[in-house]
Amino acid sequence: MLERDSPTPLYEQVEALIKKNILNKTWPKGKKIPTETELMKKFGVSRGTLKRAISNLQKNGYLVQRQGLGTFVQADIEIPLERGLYSFAEYFQAHHIDYSNKILSAKIPKKTSKDIADKLGITITDKYLCLRRLREVEGENIMLIENNINIANAPHIETADFSKESLFSIIERYSKETVEYSETKYSAVGANSEVSSYFNIKKGAPILYQEQLVHLSNNSIIEFARVWIKSNHFTLKTILHRK
Amino acid sequence: MLERDSPTPLYEQVEALIKKNILNKTWPKGKKIPTETELMKKFGVSRGTLKRAISNLQKNGYLVQRQGLGTFVQADIEIPLERGLYSFAEYFQAHHIDYSNKILSAKIPKKTSKDIADKLGITITDKYLCLRRLREVEGENIMLIENNINIANAPHIETADFSKESLFSIIERYSKETVEYSETKYSAVGANSEVSSYFNIKKGAPILYQEQLVHLSNNSIIEFARVWIKSNHFTLKTILHRK
Repeated sequence: MLERDSPTPLYEQVEALIKKNILNKTWPKGKKIPTETELMKKFGVSRGTLKRAISNLQKNGYLVQRQGLGTFVQADIEIPLERGLYSFAEYFQAHHIDYSNKILSAKIPKKTSKDIADKLGITITDKYLCLRRLREVEGENIMLIENNINIANAPHIETADFSKESLFSIIERYSKETVEYSETKYSAVGANSEVSSYFNIKKGAPILYQEQLVHLSNNSIIEFARVWIKSNHFTLKTILHRK
Repeated sequence: MLERDSPTPLYEQVEALIKKNILNKTWPKGKKIPTETELMKKFGVSRGTLKRAISNLQKNGYLVQRQGLGTFVQADIEIPLERGLYSFAEYFQAHHIDYSNKILSAKIPKKTSKDIADKLGITITDKYLCLRRLREVEGENIMLIENNINIANAPHIETADFSKESLFSIIERYSKETVEYSETKYSAVGANSEVSSYFNIKKGAPILYQEQLVHLSNNSIIEFARVWIKSNHFTLKTILHRK
């Protein structure tokens, strides 16, 4: 298996063997891989060599370490569009995926952006709340979320605590309306410098980009969201019927 | 407008002015821009300077030249998922967008790929037809399409002329079944070397990637498609309802 005389370092050889097990599905997606002790025995290498191989595979998104549980093959995060409009937070909760939010900023911009005003259907003398959050899943920043909320349709929403509650429930409480539907668009874009630094990827690396205009039950627009999603292992899934 | 003493070349200044007109929607998406003669007069520059600015904006996907019609601001191609399973060809026809197909290859691989066999639900001793096509829209290669067709469910389909007819109608004729639905996935990936050379973009540049498993009315799987889509101006659009 390992070539001890090879110019390729042992940790790289171990890395290649583990990768092979993942790609040929000997170790399936989402499943736990053998323990460090078992792998040291299997490959006949030191703990240091093994740790280095595993750490590289984590950085490249093949493996994920879960505190107290072990090392797992990274599972695909598949967002089923059939579920309709629900938040990524609700998706993670439903799939028992640990996540956390970091609020980067929550403020009413002094200068209203013309582009965002156009989306919200307000004028540039009107105001909106711009909420920017970073979502972390299993130790990895995977989403930068920007919500631009039309405060005229949800008075005093800027006083809410966005760290404790889902955005949709906050919106429903302040607007006294129900979140009804969204117009949602997806595309592939290159990471800008902000996104690349949050996600620890190269500038220009592929990002799944979502734009979403959220409507309330009284048909008014409550928010325009922009979401940058780290693209490794992240897919949108849908069933399309021939009409 | 133009600074003739500036170290920035005139064509770059013209380029910036045109870009500004596009971004602030003075020249809306999909609309014709003024003629070369009008622009030369407007900016007070030579035809050579103007042509260089326009050519750069074409390369970067802001403008598109249509033979005999003039220069247009590139329009967004928005694929509405609500339309259900229909081919990109049908979309382009419905929107009067000129496109052409180039068949790169149509053959039954000697060695059956395990991954594709798994998707099609066949064994590695079974055979499939691999059809690879390049789609050009307005002088630009925008899609690389690979269809892996289970020939057991559409006997002799390898003898069809794929350059003349839509793939779904060929499939329906040879399978004697109706195309019913697909399981479709989208993600953002980096361009591999093949895709980057067809699309004239850098390796690793963002690409919208689609995988699609197509089912017939008798519920059998007829094809597994992989599509690489040049991402500039290309979005998926959907309406999501809160359930």
